[in-house]
Amino acid sequence: VCGLRIQGLTLSTTRLDPPVIIARKRDGEELRPDEFRAFLAGYLDGQVAEEQMSAFLMAGLLRGFSREEAVVMTEAMITSGETVDLSDLRGPTIDKHSTGGVGDTCTLIVAPILAACGAQVAKLSGRGLGHTGGTLDKLESIPGCSVDLTAEEFHQQVSKIGIAVAAATQDIVPLDKRLYALRDVTGTVPSSALIASSVMSKKLAGGAEHIVLDVKTGNGALIVDPDQAFELAELCVAIAEAHGRKAAALVTDMSQPLSHAVGNAIEVAHAVEVLTGQRGGRFRDLCLEIAATGLALTGRGPDDAYGQALAALEGGRAAEVFSELVAAQGGNPEVMDRPWEVLPTAPVVADWAPGAGRVGAMDTRGLGELASGLGAGRKHKEDDIDPRVGFEMHVGIGDVLAVGQPAVRIHAANEYDRDWALGRLPDLIEISDEGQSPPPLVHARIGGARAR
Amino acid sequence: VCGLRIQGLTLSTTRLDPPVIIARKRDGEELRPDEFRAFLAGYLDGQVAEEQMSAFLMAGLLRGFSREEAVVMTEAMITSGETVDLSDLRGPTIDKHSTGGVGDTCTLIVAPILAACGAQVAKLSGRGLGHTGGTLDKLESIPGCSVDLTAEEFHQQVSKIGIAVAAATQDIVPLDKRLYALRDVTGTVPSSALIASSVMSKKLAGGAEHIVLDVKTGNGALIVDPDQAFELAELCVAIAEAHGRKAAALVTDMSQPLSHAVGNAIEVAHAVEVLTGQRGGRFRDLCLEIAATGLALTGRGPDDAYGQALAALEGGRAAEVFSELVAAQGGNPEVMDRPWEVLPTAPVVADWAPGAGRVGAMDTRGLGELASGLGAGRKHKEDDIDPRVGFEMHVGIGDVLAVGQPAVRIHAANEYDRDWALGRLPDLIEISDEGQSPPPLVHARIGGARAR
Repeated sequence: VCGLRIQGLTLSTTRLDPPVIIARKRDGEELRPDEFRAFLAGYLDGQVAEEQMSAFLMAGLLRGFSREEAVVMTEAMITSGETVDLSDLRGPTIDKHSTGGVGDTCTLIVAPILAACGAQVAKLSGRGLGHTGGTLDKLESIPGCSVDLTAEEFHQQVSKIGIAVAAATQDIVPLDKRLYALRDVTGTVPSSALIASSVMSKKLAGGAEHIVLDVKTGNGALIVDPDQAFELAELCVAIAEAHGRKAAALVTDMSQPLSHAVGNAIEVAHAVEVLTGQRGGRFRDLCLEIAATGLALTGRGPDDAYGQALAALEGGRAAEVFSELVAAQGGNPEVMDRPWEVLPTAPVVADWAPGAGRVGAMDTRGLGELASGLGAGRKHKEDDIDPRVGFEMHVGIGDVLAVGQPAVRIHAANEYDRDWALGRLPDLIEISDEGQSPPPLVHARIGGARAR
Repeated sequence: VCGLRIQGLTLSTTRLDPPVIIARKRDGEELRPDEFRAFLAGYLDGQVAEEQMSAFLMAGLLRGFSREEAVVMTEAMITSGETVDLSDLRGPTIDKHSTGGVGDTCTLIVAPILAACGAQVAKLSGRGLGHTGGTLDKLESIPGCSVDLTAEEFHQQVSKIGIAVAAATQDIVPLDKRLYALRDVTGTVPSSALIASSVMSKKLAGGAEHIVLDVKTGNGALIVDPDQAFELAELCVAIAEAHGRKAAALVTDMSQPLSHAVGNAIEVAHAVEVLTGQRGGRFRDLCLEIAATGLALTGRGPDDAYGQALAALEGGRAAEVFSELVAAQGGNPEVMDRPWEVLPTAPVVADWAPGAGRVGAMDTRGLGELASGLGAGRKHKEDDIDPRVGFEMHVGIGDVLAVGQPAVRIHAANEYDRDWALGRLPDLIEISDEGQSPPPLVHARIGGARAR
C-alpha cells in the first residue's frame, strides 16, 4: 500500500471560485480537467463547502457529466488516498464488482473460480445497506471467519493462496467516502457518472489489472432502467480503460432475486451447494458467465475462458479454493461438507404456499426489504444484522405452482417475524393464471468477448 | 411590529425525510404545501442541513417550482420572523420595489409622489451590492441623513409625515436572509420562484396593502432576458394576490443606465433636480409611470392616477415631501435648494468626449461596475463606499454626438481613478456611424391598468 497525494497538493494552489464553477455546471457546461480537479481538491481541503458540493452534484446529476469529467472525478478519488500495489503478485490480478442486488452471492463463487484458474484475486468488499446484501456480512456468517485484515495480512494471503476478501481500509478513496456520505443525504445518488466514479475509484485503487463488472438492472437494482444500466456499464469500462486497465461488464437481470437464497448464512449455504455440485440454475449460470468474462480479459480466448471456469467449478478446484479462503480468514472449513450444520440457523422456519398458478412479476426490492426486515440487512450503517434469517426462493418468474406447493421458505428469528413475512409475501410475488416469461439473465455485454 | 411564528412551530412536528423530498424535486415533482412547509420549517430548526437545502434549491432551479410552491415559500419566509403592522395608518399604504439596476434612483422620486398623493409610504430598503446601487446608500450621502430607524421611530414617522425610508431590521424574514446567503455561494440565485419569493416576502412582511414592482430587464439587470423578467413580474404579482394584497408590475428597460446619474450623491442631486422641475427625460417619465401604477391600485382610475402623480411632481408637493423626509431622518433639507453644494462632491471631475458619431449599445452592467470600481459600490457586503464618486451620462442610446461633445462626466476620488475610468469607457459605450434606436422604456405591464 503506497500513498499518492501528488495531485491533491498540486491543485489546491489553483485559484478557485466555487460559485462560478457551480453556475457553469448548472448551465450545462463541461468543466476543463484542471478546473474540475481544483474544485475537487478544494473540497478536500475545505475551500469548497459541503453545501457548495451538494449543489454542484445536483447540477451535475440533472445536467450531466461528460465521460472526461467522470474520468477526472475517479482519478481525484483515487489520488485522495492510498492505493493497493499488487504488481509483485505472480499471475494476472482480477477484481470483480457487482452494483448490488437481492440474493447476489456471485463473489463467493466467481472469486474462487478465478483463483482456481490461476488469477490473483485481492477483493475489497462492502457490507449490505438497505435492500441489498454485502459480501462481508455473508462471509462473517461462517463461524470464526474474519474480514478485517490489515493491508499486510491481505497482501500476504493473496501471495500465498491467490485469494483474499476483506473490508476496505479507511485510507482507500477518502474523497469517495466523503462524497458518498454527502450524496446519500442530498438526493444525489442516481447519476451514472457519480456511481461510475465511485465504483471505479475503489476498483482502480484496489490495484487489479483486470476488472469484471456485473451491473444489475430491474426492479431490485439501484438502477432500474436497462438503458441507464447499459450507460453506467459502458462508462465504468471507459473509466477503467482511461486508467490503463482492462475491463468488461455484463448488464444482468435483477427483476427477481438472483439466487434461490436471500439472507447471509442462507446465501453461503447455497453458494457452498453450487461449489460442491449440488445446485444449479441461473445463479450458477451467471457466476460462470462472470468468471469467464473476467478470465477472457487476461488473454484467454472466450471459449477457453468459459471452459476453464466450468472445469474449475465442476472439477472441485473452486470449492477447494473457497475452503482455503475460509480457513485462511479464521473460518471453519467444515462449512463445505455440512453447511446447514456449521452455519447458524434460524429457530423458526415456515413455508409459504400461495396455491395453484403461475409465478408472475416480483417486487424484488420489496423482497430485499423483507429480508432486511427479518434482520438480514441494515437500515443504517451502524445497525447489527442477524446472519441466520432470510428466505429461500423455491420458484422463479414463469414457474408453475400446484396446490399446496411451497414457493418461499422463511427463516425467522421468532414467530412474530414469521407471521409478518408471511403476511407481506402475497404483495411481493404475483401468482396468477397467466404468469410471465422468465426474463433474460444477461441483457448486454460491454468490452471483452462473448464465450460460446 | 408583531411576531408571527405559528407556522414554524406547528410544522416542525410533521415527520420529515429530507433526502426523499429532495429526490422528488430532483425528479420534477411538485411538493404538497404541507410537506414543503415542513421542509422549510425543518431548515429553520436544523432538521434540514445546509447541504440538503442547497441541493434542493439547485434541483428546484433546474426542474422548476410551481406558482403554488412559490406562494408557500414566500409565506414561510414571512412567518419565520416579525412583520410590520401598518393597519392603524390613515390612508392607503403603498410599497414600491425595483429588482435593481444602474442609475435607478426611482424610489427617491416615486415615494414622495405617492406620499404627496395621500398614500402612506413605509419603505424598507436595501444597500447596493455588485454593479447595482441601493437606496439606503443614496440617502446616506445627504449630510446627517440616517436610515437606521427603530421599528417605533419608523412607524411614528410614517404616521406623522406619511413617509419613511429605512433599513430592514434583522427580525424581518430571517428565513429569506439565510436562504439568500446560501444561494449566493451555491450558484442558486437565478430562479424566478426563488427571486420572487425573496422579493415578495420582504414586501409582504413590510405590511403595505398595495405593492408596485419595477422589474428590470436588459444587460444591466439581474435578469437579462425580457421573457424571464416578465415571468418573474407575473409571479410576484400572483404571490402578492395570493396573500390578499393588491399588486402591479412594470417590466422596464435596463439596457442603459436609467437616469443620467450613476453614483450615490450624484444620483441624489439629479433626483432633487427632477423633483424641483429642473430635469426631465426617461428617468422622470418612468418615475411618473411607477407612481401612477401604484396609485391606480388604490382605486383611482388610471388616468386620474397619472394626473395626480404629475400634479404632485409639477406642483412641488413631491419636493416638499422629500424635504420633510430628509429633515425627519436628520439630513440637511437645504439639499433641495443647493444640491451640488450640500452634497459631498468628488475632487476630480473630467469629461469623456469620444468624437463624432451615434451612441450604440452600452455594456450597462459594465457601467455599473465602473461606478463601483470608482468607489460608489461594494464588492462585498462589508465594504465601505465613497458617496462622492460615479459619473453623469450626457447621452443615451441613439443620441448623436458632435466632435468634442462630452458623452460622460466622471467624478473620481483621484487622478488615477479618473484615468482608469476614461480608459474603460470606450469598451462600455459603442460610438459608430450607425448607432441604434433607443429601446422602449416599459416592456410590459402586469396587473393594474395602463394610464392614458
